[in-house]
Amino acid sequence: MPAISLKGQTMPESPIRKLAPFAEAAKFQGKEVFHLNIGQPDIKTPPEAIEAVRKADLDVLSYSPSEGFASYRKALAAYYAKNGIHINSEDLIVTTGGSEAILFAMGAICDPGDEVIIPEPFYANYNGFSINAGVHVVPVTAQIEDGFALPPIEDFEALITPNTRAIMICNPGNPTGYLYKPSELEALRDLVIKHDLYLIADEVYREFAYDDNFHQSILNLEGLQENAIVIDSVSKRYSMCGARIGCVISRNSALNATMLKFAQARLSPPTMAQIAAEAALEVDPSYYEEVKAEYTRRRDILVDGLNSIEGVFCPKPAGAFYVIAQLPVDNAERFAQWLLSAFSHDNKTLMVAPAEGFYATPGMGQTQVRLAYVLEQEKLVQCVELMRLALQEYPGTHY
Amino acid sequence: MPAISLKGQTMPESPIRKLAPFAEAAKFQGKEVFHLNIGQPDIKTPPEAIEAVRKADLDVLSYSPSEGFASYRKALAAYYAKNGIHINSEDLIVTTGGSEAILFAMGAICDPGDEVIIPEPFYANYNGFSINAGVHVVPVTAQIEDGFALPPIEDFEALITPNTRAIMICNPGNPTGYLYKPSELEALRDLVIKHDLYLIADEVYREFAYDDNFHQSILNLEGLQENAIVIDSVSKRYSMCGARIGCVISRNSALNATMLKFAQARLSPPTMAQIAAEAALEVDPSYYEEVKAEYTRRRDILVDGLNSIEGVFCPKPAGAFYVIAQLPVDNAERFAQWLLSAFSHDNKTLMVAPAEGFYATPGMGQTQVRLAYVLEQEKLVQCVELMRLALQEYPGTHY
Ligand SMILES: Cc1ncc(COP(=O)(O)O)c(C=O)c1O
Ligand SMILES: Cc1ncc(COP(=O)(O)O)c(C=O)c1O
Repeated sequence: MPAISLKGQTMPESPIRKLAPFAEAAKFQGKEVFHLNIGQPDIKTPPEAIEAVRKADLDVLSYSPSEGFASYRKALAAYYAKNGIHINSEDLIVTTGGSEAILFAMGAICDPGDEVIIPEPFYANYNGFSINAGVHVVPVTAQIEDGFALPPIEDFEALITPNTRAIMICNPGNPTGYLYKPSELEALRDLVIKHDLYLIADEVYREFAYDDNFHQSILNLEGLQENAIVIDSVSKRYSMCGARIGCVISRNSALNATMLKFAQARLSPPTMAQIAAEAALEVDPSYYEEVKAEYTRRRDILVDGLNSIEGVFCPKPAGAFYVIAQLPVDNAERFAQWLLSAFSHDNKTLMVAPAEGFYATPGMGQTQVRLAYVLEQEKLVQCVELMRLALQEYPGTHY
Repeated sequence: MPAISLKGQTMPESPIRKLAPFAEAAKFQGKEVFHLNIGQPDIKTPPEAIEAVRKADLDVLSYSPSEGFASYRKALAAYYAKNGIHINSEDLIVTTGGSEAILFAMGAICDPGDEVIIPEPFYANYNGFSINAGVHVVPVTAQIEDGFALPPIEDFEALITPNTRAIMICNPGNPTGYLYKPSELEALRDLVIKHDLYLIADEVYREFAYDDNFHQSILNLEGLQENAIVIDSVSKRYSMCGARIGCVISRNSALNATMLKFAQARLSPPTMAQIAAEAALEVDPSYYEEVKAEYTRRRDILVDGLNSIEGVFCPKPAGAFYVIAQLPVDNAERFAQWLLSAFSHDNKTLMVAPAEGFYATPGMGQTQVRLAYVLEQEKLVQCVELMRLALQEYPGTHY
């Protein structure tokens, strides 16, 4: 058999997929499983978006331009302007999800063997895209004790080598929910300019900033004209993950020209989904307000509930819809498996994502889990109770 | 400005995009341009496909499984069975177009610096995907004189090095239209087995085999169980290029497991488009028959017409909807530019793709053009006439 190859790296198994056989077991046992493990929101897609596709004239479902429909790019630029971000429609390329935006950005700036510094824990799929581009992820550990704030900027600087091409952040963060403060972003800005690096910000959760916190885009940082790359997506914003529409934004025209070549090689982003995404931009601002209010209440139920459990520590983040909780267990992965295969209360149980898979440093996060508050409030109340009971019963709990 | 990087390679400008400014000029002059340059068919998408999306319940447009919807994978396996190709639904991963299927295949089998041998002229975007994976394309030149048949198998073998990972073909071919004979495929089979390589076949034009010619899939070659990788797509089959649905097929489960990791990193293929693609499988076989009959007539009009022009040589291929023609001109790229910017007859002109961009060997194909017969018959008659007149008028014509 001819060999399979992963650029000398190993592609880690996704922290969630590893649990799949245990989830199967729970299903087999007939248990109801509350899925706190994935970021698939239960919020309705704006009906206008779906309606636009239903109404569209699609006699020949043809390719769109590689960079996306001109009308959608213009509408997107207007959306950013409304959000205080002033870009031209030529500064963005429409991509097949934020996922592809990451691929284009890494592909255009990195050679195999190059390094990208990323605060951990981070979105586990960054590993997959890095391996795809032959790039090494260099982690800087953020601490749960300070809510996963940006690690000291000296920690980043200490890791910069001649192979470093970029620092990448996710703001607000998956899996931490942490929303970076302007001062943290400015420190990153100064560092990347000093060392002539790119700053890539994955801002797909931009709208999800709670408690009157303000999301600061790196596109609004002075002096980053050539260095800032933003990853964006409609997946979470309009609860239309299945559309597969995102974009990559930069004001660096040479970089855009290179990313466009990657876009041209894959021909075009999906046509119907762009129609839906363009229509979603018309959604009334009250849509976000309601969604945000709902997520804020969910977060409070989950985080306050978890912190009321003995031995559990869960910072309350200001963004996205994830939290990382520290549990009083021997090993979070074993606990997550046990929840599915051996625990139940009233025939119900929980599925959580062990946090280890969100760290690149071996051994980190072994007693942490990530929880996505993508369930209704009433279910989250039940989830907290299930967690309390499970920790009482789990043989590996120690306070 | 931080550097941009392309793995030490240069990403060639697409042969078609390079003409864009000249096409703009023609538009500005108010000319009607017949587009023989791109593979966007004018055939209608089966209405059932679009209707299925209109009717689907899409309250929450959520991710599909990374490998594609189970129902669609099963339906696809049944479609292949009907076409005499027997695979399990687990042997295929649904991708975002055939484009992504190529990316996954190259990503899973190649390290940066590895080599893939491809007969030229070939689909120019293979370059883009190779560069993405850090892979070097090693061309073997096929000859227009014998209709772009498979070059002698010794030519392939002479190019195999320790870095060679695969031989890749497109069958039927874009840009040549050539349909490989079973004996040619068997020769490739024997070679890849001997050297423990993969054989990648891009079979996206499978249905487009004319004159009672039979398309032989590499999946039906004995002994290739572990080595065969097929790239497929609904883009051309159902004239639904904008859907962005394809698949990658292999019976090598270790390879599939690795490709699946790439699939998981990008989360999922588009949801609405999968619904459309699944519905398209229900299309009555008469749909293809009509489409094939139409393309056959178009091919005959174009190829017979071209060959009736002094100095033009155009083999008549048995598949896809492209031909490469040899023209009596100084330089095909200059001629293509001239067609747009300086020529017109009755205020009409042609846009053709210079073939040079489909070759990896410098200097090849400089007097060849690729033509896609994706226009109505009556328009193709006009195209032939325009070509005749243009060659009479073009200052660089020499017989
Ligand atoms: C941080 C982050 N970035 C990017 C993505 C990619 O999402 P998509 O490709 O659906 O836009 C996700 C999805 O969960 C995410 O959480
Ligand atoms: C030979 C060949 N392979 C693959 C593709 C990719 O098509 P898609 O990504 O739309 O499936 C094309 C499109 O023109 C093609 O001609």
